[in-house]
Amino acid sequence: MRTFRLTLAYDGTRYAGWQSQSGQLTLQDTLEQALGRITRETIRVVASGRTDAGVHALGQVVSFHSESQLEPRVLQKALNAELPEDMAVLDAALAADDFHAIWSAVRKRYRYLLHDGTIRDVFARQYAWHLFTPLDEDAMRRAGQSLVGTHDFKSFETSGSPRGTSVRRVHELSVARLDATPHPLFPATPGKLISIEIEADGFLYNMVRAIVGTLIQVGQGRRAETWPAEVMAACDRRAAGRTAPANGLFLVRVDY
Amino acid sequence: MRTFRLTLAYDGTRYAGWQSQSGQLTLQDTLEQALGRITRETIRVVASGRTDAGVHALGQVVSFHSESQLEPRVLQKALNAELPEDMAVLDAALAADDFHAIWSAVRKRYRYLLHDGTIRDVFARQYAWHLFTPLDEDAMRRAGQSLVGTHDFKSFETSGSPRGTSVRRVHELSVARLDATPHPLFPATPGKLISIEIEADGFLYNMVRAIVGTLIQVGQGRRAETWPAEVMAACDRRAAGRTAPANGLFLVRVDY
Repeated sequence: MRTFRLTLAYDGTRYAGWQSQSGQLTLQDTLEQALGRITRETIRVVASGRTDAGVHALGQVVSFHSESQLEPRVLQKALNAELPEDMAVLDAALAADDFHAIWSAVRKRYRYLLHDGTIRDVFARQYAWHLFTPLDEDAMRRAGQSLVGTHDFKSFETSGSPRGTSVRRVHELSVARLDATPHPLFPATPGKLISIEIEADGFLYNMVRAIVGTLIQVGQGRRAETWPAEVMAACDRRAAGRTAPANGLFLVRVDY
Repeated sequence: MRTFRLTLAYDGTRYAGWQSQSGQLTLQDTLEQALGRITRETIRVVASGRTDAGVHALGQVVSFHSESQLEPRVLQKALNAELPEDMAVLDAALAADDFHAIWSAVRKRYRYLLHDGTIRDVFARQYAWHLFTPLDEDAMRRAGQSLVGTHDFKSFETSGSPRGTSVRRVHELSVARLDATPHPLFPATPGKLISIEIEADGFLYNMVRAIVGTLIQVGQGRRAETWPAEVMAACDRRAAGRTAPANGLFLVRVDY
């Protein structure tokens, strides 16, 4: 029995999320079925985290056990031929027997894209949250710094989540308005895309989306820059802003 | 009766092309239905060109006549509220009575995106033609220069097209590998996207896609840089490369 580790990119738009659900199109089922066709085994995969419906990944990490003797590079090619166009295996490797995509992870990075143009961008619509009012990214950046460090993030966790501690360590929280140089695919939005990146030792359920929903209140001038710190101190989900929509969220990287 | 001019962006992925077709989802029908709901008139629109199924637009221009007394800016907002998320009105204005989106056009610009990474990009898949073998963009650029100027482009026209002359003037044909700086949405493809832009006084049916299909033969080293000029001189569609797929094509701009 060997342990494999895959790095996946996917466009989550079509999927009801990562986790297997009967009667729904999910990323886990799609991957497991492709692995089954290739290996002729019934394979169960574990992902570093279960991304929600509509959430994307640039570097999701998955582990599984298999009797397959295929070279990882051969398995990667076979999978890319079997998987639909909106999923891709970026890397495949053998891992130590005790490697586990969830429990071995030490750090994760998420990105959230915001679009604050006055007219929607037809190409960014599935990849950025469109807010019609202009955002002050400098105020958001300053406000976000209060969340960096080791804190109880209970206010940014969807209530009822079955977790233990809600203390996490945020290593970095950056807010940047992207270069005004028009990208060929986003020519309508030069200077209208804002990227929020958060790196932490772990994330609570909906934590990034709750933080983004809170920071945009500052960016829109509705709340003071000190407000996110107050929200965090309240340790109460009702204190925070709304949960930002799934389509702007990307799992960027998982470190082990 | 007033004449309106709209500038539209659309993601063509879901549509069976611009032109109205019964039983099919088309851009023209979608726009006309939205205009009908707003003005309570039966409105027929004319676009600068009928983009094919899967082709995108960053600046399609449309004209129509209406009794509506709405301010163009008000009409634009109403349309953006009525249209689906993958269509957007970027501009609306009143035009001279004799303005006609097809016949008044003096110049058009198209862009074609190519992706030559070894693994597909799940986010670029609907917006770039993925070729697994590396392309030599410098060879393509040099080869493309022979097509600039006034020529008979019959070799790059889908046969049977009901047009008059196949002589057109190409003002510019540029080939550029995009900056290696990763875009947040295309981090998997730094340096793997190539943009071909063609500006001309007019285009024959499938002309851009036939030119791209010919240039990639040079980019892949299968044909000499002098070949596209020979193809053009043959005045025979069978001399050219295959027609490139629709998903990489964007109507960028129309000048009047």
